[in-house]
Amino acid sequence: MSQDSKPLHLYVGSYPTPNSVAVCTYLDELKANTGVDYDFTRIEFSKNTQKEDWFVKLNPNGRIPVLVDRTRSDFIVFETSAILLYLAQHYDKGYAFWFDPEKDANNYSEMVQWIFFAHGGIGPMQGQYHHFAQAPEKIPYAQKRYLEETKRLYGVLNIRLNGRDYLAGDGKGKYSLADIKAFPWVKIHPLVASIETLDEFPNVKAWLARCVAREASVSGAAVGSSGK
Amino acid sequence: MSQDSKPLHLYVGSYPTPNSVAVCTYLDELKANTGVDYDFTRIEFSKNTQKEDWFVKLNPNGRIPVLVDRTRSDFIVFETSAILLYLAQHYDKGYAFWFDPEKDANNYSEMVQWIFFAHGGIGPMQGQYHHFAQAPEKIPYAQKRYLEETKRLYGVLNIRLNGRDYLAGDGKGKYSLADIKAFPWVKIHPLVASIETLDEFPNVKAWLARCVAREASVSGAAVGSSGK
Repeated sequence: MSQDSKPLHLYVGSYPTPNSVAVCTYLDELKANTGVDYDFTRIEFSKNTQKEDWFVKLNPNGRIPVLVDRTRSDFIVFETSAILLYLAQHYDKGYAFWFDPEKDANNYSEMVQWIFFAHGGIGPMQGQYHHFAQAPEKIPYAQKRYLEETKRLYGVLNIRLNGRDYLAGDGKGKYSLADIKAFPWVKIHPLVASIETLDEFPNVKAWLARCVAREASVSGAAVGSSGK
Repeated sequence: MSQDSKPLHLYVGSYPTPNSVAVCTYLDELKANTGVDYDFTRIEFSKNTQKEDWFVKLNPNGRIPVLVDRTRSDFIVFETSAILLYLAQHYDKGYAFWFDPEKDANNYSEMVQWIFFAHGGIGPMQGQYHHFAQAPEKIPYAQKRYLEETKRLYGVLNIRLNGRDYLAGDGKGKYSLADIKAFPWVKIHPLVASIETLDEFPNVKAWLARCVAREASVSGAAVGSSGK
C-alpha cells in the first residue's frame, strides 16, 4: 500500500447506479464512524470499460461496483451485497450498521434475509423495468410485468416496515446494511412509470425519507456523478 | 418442540424448484454429516397457497422455501441463500460446507460473492427466461434477452471454474454453499432453449456433473416431488 493511497479502492459507475450508491453510502458512514477512507475509479459505461480484459480480471461478471482492499493484499470483492458484508466484517467491528452474527444471531439473520430480498428481488426486477422502459422495442406485456412486480415488492417492504423504522433489528429496528442495500433502489422510484409517489406505500415512504436524510446518503449518492 | 417433530421444518414447493432443491440438498448433506433432521410441508402452487395469510405471516414475500427452526423458538428464515447461511452458522459448526468467517475470511467472502452472483444473477435471469418461454404471449425480444443473459452468466461461471472443481476455496476449491446455491439452476438448463447441452461451457459441465453426483443432491432434489 503506497503512502498516498487510501486503504480501500472502489470501482464505481460513470453515473450513480443504486449499487454504486449503496456501497458509497456505507463507505461514507464508515468514514464518519471509524475514519477508514477510500478512493475510487469511475468506470465509463459509454465505453463499456467494465467489459475490458483488465476489469473482467477483477470481476468476471464485468459489473461495478468492485472493491479492492489495499490493506489486505489487494483482496477483491464484487457483488454489492457481498461488498457490504465484507466491509462490515473488516471495518465495522463495533456493529454500528450490522449485528453480531454470534451474540445477536436472529437480528443478523433477519438483516441477511432482507439483503437477499433486495438483492434477488427489488434490484433485478426494477432493473428489468428500467430496461424495458428504455428498450428500442416497446413491449407492453414486459413493461406491465415489471411494473407490477416492482410494486408488489415495494408492498412487501411496506408490510415489513409496518410499525418499524428500519428493516432489521429489535423494536423499531436499527439502520443497517439491509436498509443501505434496499433504499438506493427505492429512491429512484420516480423513474418507474406510475410510481411517481410512494403514497400507496406509506411505511416505505417514511422509511425512505429517514434513509436519504442521512449525511452519508447524500455524499454517497454523489460519488461517481461529480468530481468528488 | 414436540417429541415427534424434527428440529427443523421446511416449507417447499409442490414441485422441486431450484430454490427448494438447494435448501433440501444442503439439509440432506447436513443430515448425513451431523445428524440434524428436518420435516417439510409441501406448498401447493396450483392453489397459490404461498399467498395465503398464514403463509405471508411466515414470509411477507409469499415465496418458498421458508425454514422454521423449532430448536430456536420457531425462528423463521426466508430467502434461499439466507437459509443456507443460517443453517451453516447454526448446524455446520465444523465448516463442512462453508468457511470460517474469521479464520478463513477470504474464502468465506469469495463464497458469499458467488452466492450473491447466483442469487441476483442466474436465479432471476434464468427465471425470467422460463417465464417468457411459457408466457401466453410470445415475445421474441424478451426470450432472446433472457436466453443471452443466462448464457452470459453461465459463461461467467465457466471463467471462474477454469482449473477449479468448485466455486470457492483454496486450490481447486471445496464443495460449499456457493455450489449448492448455483447448481440447481444450472441443472435445469435443458429447459432453456438452445442450452440443451453445456458443451459450450466445459468447466460448468464438469462442475455440474460433480455436484449432481452427490447422494444429497439426488435425495435433496426429490423432496417435494415425491411422498418422501
